[in-house]
Amino acid sequence: MKYEISTFLENLSHFSAPGPGVTRRSFTKESQDAWEYIIGTMESLGLDVQTDNLGTIAGHLEGRRKESIVLGSHYDSVIQGGKYDGAVGIAVGLAVAAYFTGKGIQPEYSLDILATNDEEGGTIGDGFLSSKHICGLLQEEKCRNEATGKSLNAYISEGWYTKNGRGRDDLRLNTAFQNVIQYIETHIEQGGILWENQEQIGVVKHIVGLTKLFVTIRGVSNHAGTTPMNLRKDAMVAAAKVISKIPELARAYEGAVATVGAIYCSPNADNVIPGEVRFAVDIRSACDEDRRELVDAIASLIQQESPVSCEIVQSLNQVAVAMAPKLVSAMERICRDAHYRYRVMNSGAGHDAQLFGLYLDTVMLFIPSQEGISHSPQEFSRIEDMERAAQVLIDYTLSLG
Amino acid sequence: MKYEISTFLENLSHFSAPGPGVTRRSFTKESQDAWEYIIGTMESLGLDVQTDNLGTIAGHLEGRRKESIVLGSHYDSVIQGGKYDGAVGIAVGLAVAAYFTGKGIQPEYSLDILATNDEEGGTIGDGFLSSKHICGLLQEEKCRNEATGKSLNAYISEGWYTKNGRGRDDLRLNTAFQNVIQYIETHIEQGGILWENQEQIGVVKHIVGLTKLFVTIRGVSNHAGTTPMNLRKDAMVAAAKVISKIPELARAYEGAVATVGAIYCSPNADNVIPGEVRFAVDIRSACDEDRRELVDAIASLIQQESPVSCEIVQSLNQVAVAMAPKLVSAMERICRDAHYRYRVMNSGAGHDAQLFGLYLDTVMLFIPSQEGISHSPQEFSRIEDMERAAQVLIDYTLSLG
Repeated sequence: MKYEISTFLENLSHFSAPGPGVTRRSFTKESQDAWEYIIGTMESLGLDVQTDNLGTIAGHLEGRRKESIVLGSHYDSVIQGGKYDGAVGIAVGLAVAAYFTGKGIQPEYSLDILATNDEEGGTIGDGFLSSKHICGLLQEEKCRNEATGKSLNAYISEGWYTKNGRGRDDLRLNTAFQNVIQYIETHIEQGGILWENQEQIGVVKHIVGLTKLFVTIRGVSNHAGTTPMNLRKDAMVAAAKVISKIPELARAYEGAVATVGAIYCSPNADNVIPGEVRFAVDIRSACDEDRRELVDAIASLIQQESPVSCEIVQSLNQVAVAMAPKLVSAMERICRDAHYRYRVMNSGAGHDAQLFGLYLDTVMLFIPSQEGISHSPQEFSRIEDMERAAQVLIDYTLSLG
Repeated sequence: MKYEISTFLENLSHFSAPGPGVTRRSFTKESQDAWEYIIGTMESLGLDVQTDNLGTIAGHLEGRRKESIVLGSHYDSVIQGGKYDGAVGIAVGLAVAAYFTGKGIQPEYSLDILATNDEEGGTIGDGFLSSKHICGLLQEEKCRNEATGKSLNAYISEGWYTKNGRGRDDLRLNTAFQNVIQYIETHIEQGGILWENQEQIGVVKHIVGLTKLFVTIRGVSNHAGTTPMNLRKDAMVAAAKVISKIPELARAYEGAVATVGAIYCSPNADNVIPGEVRFAVDIRSACDEDRRELVDAIASLIQQESPVSCEIVQSLNQVAVAMAPKLVSAMERICRDAHYRYRVMNSGAGHDAQLFGLYLDTVMLFIPSQEGISHSPQEFSRIEDMERAAQVLIDYTLSLG
């Protein structure tokens, strides 16, 4: 079978709930259809397919050695996302496999093309479902849909990913995946650095650490017309002072970012002084020490500005994950030798690679995102950049021979 | 009949939708029940009751002269409001009428005890329904429920306020109310000035002017992890800079207030840089010139801080209304002679009096609000303060004899 990255991406994008862009949440009909399509594509390329009951798919190509390199990413999407986030890493992995099966060359190391499920979260907890399971980090009994309370086991029992006798394998690092030695994920950058600098490929050195704070600032709600300015304890003004100063705090740490993306005001009426404002702060840095200092600085600012009281709940605290230096160097060398315009950079977003990176030598390749847009129907990346990434991975695999 | 302010307020408070506090929106069963109760109370006091089809009620007590003084306020409430906002002015007006009918004294001027409907807004447009109608300012064909689009005429045709042959009078200044010469409204302060200063009564000199701005600040939505701080066009940070500076702009104008009570962020997701933030700014001053300058200063600040573009819609622009100096002096003199602890002050909130004040000699008396709380089930005012206000109005009426 002739395999094309563009055809695979185009076909996969059609498995979507109605609406703009691509909506492919885990444990839905569109996810199940995509799952069947990916399995079919892998089989047509001559790969030996294994699956678990979470929707994870692994297509195995036997090398001269048992030790295997995993090339993969996720096939679920956010609501009204694009065609590229996640799908690109599977498409590129399949292109590498297709190269070897097409030419009838057996690679030195075995290859596992991996398609993970529910990386984005939203259906089950905070995502990374397949990669947590593979790494043995999934606490199944604690996994639920946050909105409905429906348990992961209830989803599993509906049998979305067990058609045709599938879903009985246990894709864990210590079972089916016991020979895996490296994980390489190709993904769209989701930021504007490569596109803005007219570069063709990124080699990731660190996946940043992430702290998420949920902040409540309390003041006193009162009539907007009858309460003099000097008698106010306005929770909105206090929150605004904090939010307006966060960027300058973040800029003090190189490469760190901090964002207030969501805000809720109570009672949120035009003519009432807000009594309570809640907001989320998302804080990321490749340096865990910097991130902790920045979190502390933001927390101090919140305490200082709160007119009555405040509450700061730390809901997420992920450490930065370093990619394997030898893999970063290898990818860099291949890019340099091929005269690609590349950049060694950090990943500001979370990826399955941050879990695999705790157990395996791991690296990521980034594909430029047009205007840095992602999680949007407007997401766009160039097929030629993906083909270049596939060539890097082919060259890397061949270099091990 | 023996009339007590406390009994009237208590009975009226029971006409409420379920939930905390008092919810008595216009054109509902609880409003209709309150309407019947007020009519019944007026009739039992020997007043001649007139009504229109909007729920307005006027109880007439004939004086020696045809010219009449209106004492009134509104009987509708906000959602989950208190027992006092509006109701107090009707209760006090009825106490004045009860004094004259109870003692068999005919006042020099006729009295009209007025109970207005939908002053608070929310059902029909922005409120002041009865007072707009009485003043001839209501554009019935333009009046609709903003959420459902249901027209005022559709509400009227449901016949909420036309039971027992009522609702055929036309309570307009040039018809039933053609002899009206003064309007006096007693109302809770809804601010904390009288309570904090342990004062018993307020005499209102100005009702402040009000401008309401609906602001949209546009930036560029992007991934919170992958977009470096220096490449961001964050609409939330821009809005926060504006909101945090508004208090200092307002403090430059004596007595002026400016409030951001409501905010909406889009897409409002923890890990997405906000692309658009909308908020309302409520700006009030007793001096129209100050208010216009403050509005301009806030608008300039918004334009200066917006990362991509902004839109500022002025949705309300009410001029400040001066109370009649001779009525302010008369009320002040009575309070002083009675050794009441009183204050001449401005009203930061809007009231029916601001419309009547455009056509009639008008004044307001303020009753202290505990802790300045209003529009809340926690609203509280002292009955003795209301009785004191009734005494001021009785003394005033007698002084005209």
